[in-house]
Amino acid sequence: MAAPEYALPELYPVPGFRLGTTSAGIKQPGRPDLVVMAFAGQSTCAAVFTRNAFCAAPVVVAREHLEQSSPTGLLVNTGNANAGTGAAGVGDAELCCAALADRLGCAPAAVLPFSTGVIGEPLPVEPILAGLPDAVADLSEDGWAAAATGILTTDTVPKGTSRRISIGGHTVTVTGIAKGSGMIRPDMATMLAFVATDASVQAEDLQACLSRAVDASFNRITVDGDTSTNDACVLVATGDAAADPVAPGDEHYENLCAAITGVCIELAQAIVRDGEGATRFVTVAVEQGASTDECLQLAYTIAHSPLIKTALFAGDPNWGRILAAVGRAGISGLELQAVQIYLDEVCIVRDGGRAPEYTEAAGQRVMARDELTIRVLLGRGASAEQIWTCDLSYDYVRINAEYRT
Amino acid sequence: MAAPEYALPELYPVPGFRLGTTSAGIKQPGRPDLVVMAFAGQSTCAAVFTRNAFCAAPVVVAREHLEQSSPTGLLVNTGNANAGTGAAGVGDAELCCAALADRLGCAPAAVLPFSTGVIGEPLPVEPILAGLPDAVADLSEDGWAAAATGILTTDTVPKGTSRRISIGGHTVTVTGIAKGSGMIRPDMATMLAFVATDASVQAEDLQACLSRAVDASFNRITVDGDTSTNDACVLVATGDAAADPVAPGDEHYENLCAAITGVCIELAQAIVRDGEGATRFVTVAVEQGASTDECLQLAYTIAHSPLIKTALFAGDPNWGRILAAVGRAGISGLELQAVQIYLDEVCIVRDGGRAPEYTEAAGQRVMARDELTIRVLLGRGASAEQIWTCDLSYDYVRINAEYRT
Repeated sequence: MAAPEYALPELYPVPGFRLGTTSAGIKQPGRPDLVVMAFAGQSTCAAVFTRNAFCAAPVVVAREHLEQSSPTGLLVNTGNANAGTGAAGVGDAELCCAALADRLGCAPAAVLPFSTGVIGEPLPVEPILAGLPDAVADLSEDGWAAAATGILTTDTVPKGTSRRISIGGHTVTVTGIAKGSGMIRPDMATMLAFVATDASVQAEDLQACLSRAVDASFNRITVDGDTSTNDACVLVATGDAAADPVAPGDEHYENLCAAITGVCIELAQAIVRDGEGATRFVTVAVEQGASTDECLQLAYTIAHSPLIKTALFAGDPNWGRILAAVGRAGISGLELQAVQIYLDEVCIVRDGGRAPEYTEAAGQRVMARDELTIRVLLGRGASAEQIWTCDLSYDYVRINAEYRT
Repeated sequence: MAAPEYALPELYPVPGFRLGTTSAGIKQPGRPDLVVMAFAGQSTCAAVFTRNAFCAAPVVVAREHLEQSSPTGLLVNTGNANAGTGAAGVGDAELCCAALADRLGCAPAAVLPFSTGVIGEPLPVEPILAGLPDAVADLSEDGWAAAATGILTTDTVPKGTSRRISIGGHTVTVTGIAKGSGMIRPDMATMLAFVATDASVQAEDLQACLSRAVDASFNRITVDGDTSTNDACVLVATGDAAADPVAPGDEHYENLCAAITGVCIELAQAIVRDGEGATRFVTVAVEQGASTDECLQLAYTIAHSPLIKTALFAGDPNWGRILAAVGRAGISGLELQAVQIYLDEVCIVRDGGRAPEYTEAAGQRVMARDELTIRVLLGRGASAEQIWTCDLSYDYVRINAEYRT
């Protein structure tokens, strides 16, 4: 946002999980752009990736490595996405993984690579290899805040959050960081996000937990509808806490999943708040739908409408644009008379037209808020979904018109 | 566009079809905003309308009237869309139709109403009724150019075109006008467009001809992906030419359909060229697809991507964004290695990555053009489709942020 209100909170260290950050000079000299994460061999690791068919080389390599080995290290560079780089890009990613594996004393397949930045340029392998010793030397359980900055691209603020819960009387920590600002409409995955806990969880149970968390967080945000080639979210459980292992069916597993979901929602919302050029944080809630799918379909139609997004930027309660979006969302058999539309507490549409009590002043009062909810009641079922998005401003155009200049 | 190059060409009169325009003061005093069209009783009329479920009151009324009667008059106002106005809006539209029918000496159901402008405000019936006498007095076969201006809203230029063909040695004319600049992604219909010919065609054959023409023209454009509540396209055949009636199966019918399609394509492209804030006219062509649907799905994904549209505005050959859009378009089983992407004559992507011979200078040379084609070859079939769109500029945001102020 123009004046970001999201400050990085205290990020609790996760025992057994270390992070190291350095400036490798990949794009700009002096800017932190290379992050290494390392964790003990007994850790479990879960991950979800973009469903963009043109997924980047690091996504291809990370998926392969996950099938071959249990990870103990992560390698993240910004400034270059290593996407659209064909077979050479895959080779470059493998080379960097092998170099880090050499320093960590593990197999190359135990390292997962992540890249973010410009698409279509060859990965600058030399500076990454040259920067690795510094990054590894910087590894520390206190490295979260520096890493949160080291993974940024067009972001204006670092994004991270922590939770502590108790499992059988033992404190367990969940900490996560994320980056993302543009090309944001995660599809069954997310932007780059890294979450760690010192709970002890079997790998398959951890994956189930991550899927639930991502579905409720990163899969419910959109800035511009453009799904990235590089999205990835990784969750590591080091098991270093004194707490007993947790598994589905027990209360502690549910508590841990809730804490992880809470961390992911906070990170996802932080990405939207820092959406390129965003000046408003908008919740789009669709209720009384016949199915989850139709609720999401309508919510995304509203969230992606350039006309609604520019009206949000202007603070203009131009609700006709919302009504038009409801009408074109492709919901079959929609009963117009049953539809109600609210801006926060203000009902604007009822009985197929403007609510009789609606006033322009009431609409403008809501639209002046930094955060608001567009709520659509369909009157045809019990499904409800909400997603988070932002407005479309001059700065969005400026940022993306000038991105490579 | 910033400096529109589309000038209104000579619009040939269509014998039997008269147009009258006046300033009724609906939104701004002195601006032409009320247009009446009248045609002889033997004329046939075909129409297509928006599929937005929240279609406007005039669309509801026009559909009903078409079922009841053969039209002889059209009534168009700008400055107010009479959309989202519930039952009162339908009553207002009926009232205006009845008033015009009274002056034309026909049944109220023989008049079709059309409105365009702001959504959600009550139709200002009084100025429309007060303006009708002037508009009717202005009726003339030479009224096309004035009407082309009288139906505009945020458009910066009037849009119209004419064709003349020969049917059995007799000259037959096709003339059409259209308006549209924002909220443009017609769905099985179009923005407001009015096309007339003096050919003699049965109503059902005329409807078939219109459907073909609209599918190849207005249904192949998008400015911002927002389908309007008021889209409509009307085609009238007066039969006043000396030519014999035409019907499917004869060569003259095909020639007439081709002329009508040509008029519609030119009008549709004129709408995109005059897209809100547009600085570039872009053809998106998808070829070698497995089906028409997947070609269109991908073409619209590219055409609606805010990241691609801002790169087009900047003249930046940021082809990674095109590649990312191809990847997220939801085409199942896409073979990345088979995909090729071109900017006009320049191949940018082949074999899953950047084409070896591609240079940034070559990409920039194409992107500097006012008109260019993004061409994607999928290498999986024989289907091909193309659509037309424009870029996303500061002015798009300004126009839509300031629309109601």
